[in-house]
Amino acid sequence: MARVYDFSATDGTDIELLGGKGAGLARMTSLGLPVPPGFTISTEVSRAAMTSGVVSPELWPEVKEAIERLEKVTGRTFGRGPVPILLAVRSGASISMPGMMDSILNIGINDDVVDALAEWSGDAHFAWDAYRRFVQMYGNVVLGVNEHLFQSVLTDLRTFRGVSSDAELGAEDLESATRRFQSIVEDHQPGQLPRDPMEQLSGAISAVFGSWDSKRANEYRRINRIPNDLGTAANVQMMVFGDLGDDSGTGVAFTRDPATGARVTYGDYLPRAQGEDVVAGLRNTLTLEDLAQLHPECHDQLLDIMNRLEQHYTDMCDIEFTIEKNHLYILQTRPGKRTAAAAVRLAVAMYHEGLIDRAIAVSRVSPASLEQLHRPRIADTVDLEGAATIGVAASPGAATGRAVFSSEEAVNQARAGETILLIRPATTPEDIHGMAVASGILTTHGGKTSHAAVVARGMGKPAVTGAASLLVDVHSSSASAGGLEIHAGDLITIDGTSGAVFFGTVDLVEPESLPELAELLGWADEIRTIGIRANADNAEDAVIALRRGAEGIGLARTEHMFMGERLGVVQDIILSTDPEARKSALLHLEQLQIGDFEALLEAMDGLPVVIRLLDPPLHEFLPSRLELEREMLRRVRSGLPIDDLQSMSDQVGIWEEDNPMLGLRGVRLGLMVRDLYRMQARAAAAALVRRIKVGGDPHLEIMVPLVADVEELSRMRIVITEELDAAGDSAGIDLQVPIGTMIELPRAALTAAEIAQVADFFSFGTNDLTQMTYGLSRDDAEALFLRDYLEQGIFKTDPFQTIDRAGVGRLMRVAAREGREANEDLIVGLCGEHGGDPESIAFVVELGLDYVSCSPPRIQGARLAAAQAALSSGIS
Amino acid sequence: MARVYDFSATDGTDIELLGGKGAGLARMTSLGLPVPPGFTISTEVSRAAMTSGVVSPELWPEVKEAIERLEKVTGRTFGRGPVPILLAVRSGASISMPGMMDSILNIGINDDVVDALAEWSGDAHFAWDAYRRFVQMYGNVVLGVNEHLFQSVLTDLRTFRGVSSDAELGAEDLESATRRFQSIVEDHQPGQLPRDPMEQLSGAISAVFGSWDSKRANEYRRINRIPNDLGTAANVQMMVFGDLGDDSGTGVAFTRDPATGARVTYGDYLPRAQGEDVVAGLRNTLTLEDLAQLHPECHDQLLDIMNRLEQHYTDMCDIEFTIEKNHLYILQTRPGKRTAAAAVRLAVAMYHEGLIDRAIAVSRVSPASLEQLHRPRIADTVDLEGAATIGVAASPGAATGRAVFSSEEAVNQARAGETILLIRPATTPEDIHGMAVASGILTTHGGKTSHAAVVARGMGKPAVTGAASLLVDVHSSSASAGGLEIHAGDLITIDGTSGAVFFGTVDLVEPESLPELAELLGWADEIRTIGIRANADNAEDAVIALRRGAEGIGLARTEHMFMGERLGVVQDIILSTDPEARKSALLHLEQLQIGDFEALLEAMDGLPVVIRLLDPPLHEFLPSRLELEREMLRRVRSGLPIDDLQSMSDQVGIWEEDNPMLGLRGVRLGLMVRDLYRMQARAAAAALVRRIKVGGDPHLEIMVPLVADVEELSRMRIVITEELDAAGDSAGIDLQVPIGTMIELPRAALTAAEIAQVADFFSFGTNDLTQMTYGLSRDDAEALFLRDYLEQGIFKTDPFQTIDRAGVGRLMRVAAREGREANEDLIVGLCGEHGGDPESIAFVVELGLDYVSCSPPRIQGARLAAAQAALSSGIS
Repeated sequence: MARVYDFSATDGTDIELLGGKGAGLARMTSLGLPVPPGFTISTEVSRAAMTSGVVSPELWPEVKEAIERLEKVTGRTFGRGPVPILLAVRSGASISMPGMMDSILNIGINDDVVDALAEWSGDAHFAWDAYRRFVQMYGNVVLGVNEHLFQSVLTDLRTFRGVSSDAELGAEDLESATRRFQSIVEDHQPGQLPRDPMEQLSGAISAVFGSWDSKRANEYRRINRIPNDLGTAANVQMMVFGDLGDDSGTGVAFTRDPATGARVTYGDYLPRAQGEDVVAGLRNTLTLEDLAQLHPECHDQLLDIMNRLEQHYTDMCDIEFTIEKNHLYILQTRPGKRTAAAAVRLAVAMYHEGLIDRAIAVSRVSPASLEQLHRPRIADTVDLEGAATIGVAASPGAATGRAVFSSEEAVNQARAGETILLIRPATTPEDIHGMAVASGILTTHGGKTSHAAVVARGMGKPAVTGAASLLVDVHSSSASAGGLEIHAGDLITIDGTSGAVFFGTVDLVEPESLPELAELLGWADEIRTIGIRANADNAEDAVIALRRGAEGIGLARTEHMFMGERLGVVQDIILSTDPEARKSALLHLEQLQIGDFEALLEAMDGLPVVIRLLDPPLHEFLPSRLELEREMLRRVRSGLPIDDLQSMSDQVGIWEEDNPMLGLRGVRLGLMVRDLYRMQARAAAAALVRRIKVGGDPHLEIMVPLVADVEELSRMRIVITEELDAAGDSAGIDLQVPIGTMIELPRAALTAAEIAQVADFFSFGTNDLTQMTYGLSRDDAEALFLRDYLEQGIFKTDPFQTIDRAGVGRLMRVAAREGREANEDLIVGLCGEHGGDPESIAFVVELGLDYVSCSPPRIQGARLAAAQAALSSGIS
Repeated sequence: MARVYDFSATDGTDIELLGGKGAGLARMTSLGLPVPPGFTISTEVSRAAMTSGVVSPELWPEVKEAIERLEKVTGRTFGRGPVPILLAVRSGASISMPGMMDSILNIGINDDVVDALAEWSGDAHFAWDAYRRFVQMYGNVVLGVNEHLFQSVLTDLRTFRGVSSDAELGAEDLESATRRFQSIVEDHQPGQLPRDPMEQLSGAISAVFGSWDSKRANEYRRINRIPNDLGTAANVQMMVFGDLGDDSGTGVAFTRDPATGARVTYGDYLPRAQGEDVVAGLRNTLTLEDLAQLHPECHDQLLDIMNRLEQHYTDMCDIEFTIEKNHLYILQTRPGKRTAAAAVRLAVAMYHEGLIDRAIAVSRVSPASLEQLHRPRIADTVDLEGAATIGVAASPGAATGRAVFSSEEAVNQARAGETILLIRPATTPEDIHGMAVASGILTTHGGKTSHAAVVARGMGKPAVTGAASLLVDVHSSSASAGGLEIHAGDLITIDGTSGAVFFGTVDLVEPESLPELAELLGWADEIRTIGIRANADNAEDAVIALRRGAEGIGLARTEHMFMGERLGVVQDIILSTDPEARKSALLHLEQLQIGDFEALLEAMDGLPVVIRLLDPPLHEFLPSRLELEREMLRRVRSGLPIDDLQSMSDQVGIWEEDNPMLGLRGVRLGLMVRDLYRMQARAAAAALVRRIKVGGDPHLEIMVPLVADVEELSRMRIVITEELDAAGDSAGIDLQVPIGTMIELPRAALTAAEIAQVADFFSFGTNDLTQMTYGLSRDDAEALFLRDYLEQGIFKTDPFQTIDRAGVGRLMRVAAREGREANEDLIVGLCGEHGGDPESIAFVVELGLDYVSCSPPRIQGARLAAAQAALSSGIS
């Protein structure tokens, strides 16, 4: 198989081989669009290099031949005059990782070529700027020389010349800058800066392949769950120059508005600039309307191309273009990153435009992104006049957080539990970490296509960019606007929908629902093969869940009903030594539980409601001994008595456990703590009777947690059935209540065939199942090492986010299969956080379970993910 | 199938159908021995009754027919004169449960029959004694009337008559006692005491079946791991009377000495008594030598029968006999309970006598009992003259403990962690609980065949019985002998080998080894199919393990090398904020570890030594925060400064975990705590090199704990290999060290195929695997609920004692199979406490693993258990 593919040699359909960028270039070339010629080095070369540790030497002869073809096609020459070709080498994986990997531009320049270039262009300033850009970029990207060293040379020059931009420097300044850059590189990497153009090219290609394995690329893949072994292609393309005088420029455009999905084109244009300048967001940009004024023909040609590309790709496209002396070139196209709202609107609109069918529309929206749609926005009552400043509305939604001025600080503060908002002049790929933990992002530079904007939209976070009137001082960690000042730690609010920035907090409200979303989810509901229930512990959550499309409650955690002001009653039950006092506390709690259950059944009238009996260890309802000892210490120091605490501490000690996760909880409480489960079953039965008596249609199910052995469930089933029968008998109603169990211990999964004989349903508790299967407490692991494990790639994915198929998933497969073989009426679902995770939902669809249950905010995503899984597995 | 089998109707080979006692009676009958006639109601009747809740009514006609046959054979009559038959109904399960179930004697007596009996025997005293015994026993056993009520009537009568024993009462006294007994029963259970003999019989049979499910029987089965669903037979037999005057009596005999295994007959005889009187141990007994004086013919006949029975059963027999007016009757035979030493000596002796082959000899000894052989005995330097008293040497070995005077107190004290010694006048089946937790048992009554003696030997505990000069006052919880007094809580020592009782403590020593044991274990070693290694953490344990026959070390826990005076060094490593200080502490520990490993390799020269890298969480090496807070409180109260503790507490807080069992431990430490595993690997490599250089033959293996994912082991393998290569290179030696992993997390078992590709061996850590599979922390569960779970039968066996085949075992099967499929050279073993458990060893043999590793005291038992498992699975 070939290693090198000219853009004109394929139709660009093999994205895995060519990468996204390479495939797009080939595709556009085959469509006859004005793409500067070049070639793609396939992803296989990168994969082979990862295995062997070095780029195959057989590549270079192929590259040389491709260059010769390039010279023939263009009539120009690489590495010499009269019309020298400069080359760009850009990475391009099969899955887009914008800005994460390296590019090197202006390759093929040296002391000879710079003169030829000056002569050809008639612009020595341009030629020397290209040369200094090459030395700077190669020095920094390939040889690792600190960027600041180069920047300070330019700063000195500007200061010396008394100008504010590099464009104002003279050709001789740029020549001198180039020479100083060369010395800097020579100082740090002696003999490493090639003069030979082919050496420059091979160095650049190797560096691009190497950048696949950079820390930030790995981090990005981890966050976006992209496999590490895909590798990247490298695209070698003839440079066209957006900085070749005033009739040149470069820009980025979207075929529709990536923030709203509206059917309007959108773009940023920078005259006299090279491509990276737009994305870097360091200069503020012009709009497409401005472009129409400057280059009407190019503008019309661009709009025509954008239209053709959207029709061709049947999706919103993100296009990079350059105008070189009034000639339009298209440098890249790809599906544009979009906000969740835009994705939904686009998908539905394109269906109605006849571009795509419903299945594709459903597939076009990321299930996880739907949570964004419910992110708060600034209340209408808030006067935007009160904003400290208004920037670019780069990623919608509002966010409030404590100001931080560096990504390191963002990570530290977030680890300490703070909600933070990241403020930067502009973001770079080095900021990925900080952006990932921020509630929102605010930059003073860049437009809607800047790094900050693109990444924030990808992450579904609010962002305001280009807030130019905000003066940020990262050294003193402060910012000011309109005479007001904030410092690190102060609260700040941004509204990515309007671009408004407020110092302090303002009222936020839930956003209106999107009519297109209901339409799209309706299609998803028709496609999906599993039910979607909600985890909800009270009627309020149940109502929200219903509104989001839940088909019942898959998990109502009764322990949540034991908290708050009821804690005293629960403590009485646990600690009472007087049987009468204990009995009366139990009775009190029973009355409260009846009300809880009744409200849930009423909210979910006609739909199933699975009530899980008490799960956590009882000491969760008591203060910890450490807390008590500390309070004692405090009191002793203040000369106060501590006897009451002393006796409380002794009592608490009885219930204390070394490993509460593995202790007296779940059904063990039901069996060991007299009357507790019986009381809950009685309360549930009473609520059921009340609902039936008022004409309701309650569908109660009772679930026993933490069963390890069939005998535990058998015995609890008897107790629960006794209470249901008693309540039913005295009300004269035959109460039909399925009784089931969580499958959350490996042993329950392994003995599912036995357990299924006394269970009406199973519900996988994959959080506990993951903890036990891995021998890993989620809380402890996250505090101490799970993040490191993921960063170092020891675990490929976080098993608490996505079901581990090899271990946990294998147990689930065994349990579902053997449980159903033993009891053909067995209903099998999943409740817990994995129920809202699209990949885990895909696994559930594959296993053929009956439903997933997830938290209300994730229900719409789950509906969509279930449909997508059905589509991709072909079982819809 | 029939429900009733006459003793003369079968050859007594079907023990499962007839129970042990019934089979023995049938067998002896078929051998022509003088067995009183009768019949057995099969165990199936009991099993059917357990299922349906009631004894099948179809039984009674069959019983009636059997009675008619009995009348025909004996020429006597049931329920009327002239020669009335009285019947005994005795339980008899297929597995012996001595004393655990009920017997009812003298059935068939009423106001008419008592007269006939008096006339036939010419002994009204005897007849009325039989009647009062019947009323007492039926009232107590069948109808549940408190025994004390009857006893106080007898006490009153004796006081009134001024006599000390019932035998001295007159016939009229016994008649009056009978009448008073009848009123007592009538008061408590009106109309329930049958006059009709057939009703008496059916009541007694039902009660015997019911006693299978008594609390004490269930407890006994739990301790001895006898299935609950076996059921019992009921044996109905014509009474013969050991209390029919001075030429009558009753006794128990063993064909060899049950305490030592010596080839001497041994027996207890009580003139003028019924059978239960011997076992109850309330009267002190005569010996067989005494019997030879009293009844020379019966004595000779008895010895002849004992000889025939031993030849027939090819085992030591326990025989109950009665002499009625100089006629010998045999009432029961069964394999005699024996001490471990006796079992070993008997098995080896019988092999040499040609009675049994080696396989049977190996099967005759309980593996668990071998630990007894290493129980301490009184040092030779101890003067027995110093004993407070000397009783019967009922079960060998010495024990020291705090005196307790009731079984309830024994249980309470044992739960609180005390080593206790149970002192009772005599024990009854109600004492099983207390005996199970005692280190030794001391009674003032009873001989070597008393309940206390039999049960203690069964449990492998030292016991002294019949210490008649010890005056015990259970009410004041004190005892005195020779003018000395002890109270509850005082230390007391017994020597069950000599019968000596000491107040306080005396020197104890390890016993000499038994030459017969070495011979027997040699046979076992030839038979067994798996290797036996030891869990040993230091050279001393390794030497003991070798002496017991270990073939290597399967588990050396390096954390045990971190304790004691080294704790400070370890704390420095954990808490140091200064990198240099940390480095120097690590280096210090490395030097210490080299010595540890060297000593282990030297002790086990030529045999494999598996070193497990550090497993427990680091905070196990730090004080707990609760402890620190308490110390702070104490200091504050004393006005002392607490700053150092405060900062220590903060540091400790960093490492603290909610669920340490599921936290940062095992390989997670290896990956996250810089240089820790590397240091251990380097130390192991250095020790290996040192041993090779001095001409040793070390076989080091390195084991990584708590692997959940193959990637963890892959990475650690690289680190370990680097250190081994470095050490080998610098010494010029090619170090061959297998690197393997514990399989102790469900996920490791489920992904064994992957892990096996980077492992040279697996070692199942079944303790952790059980904890994770059940979601059950052993320590927490034992403190809070596991005992209750077992008592209530929710768990049938303790999964921490015996491998749970359905869950944990299933994971092991998967891991062993898939691991070996992936790596055909994979060695698979098991280390941990299950490695010493015979049932778990049987499972390991079934799985075809390579070895088990257990603690040194259990090695000999493991060798034997492995042989027995090979024999019973037919794979030897």
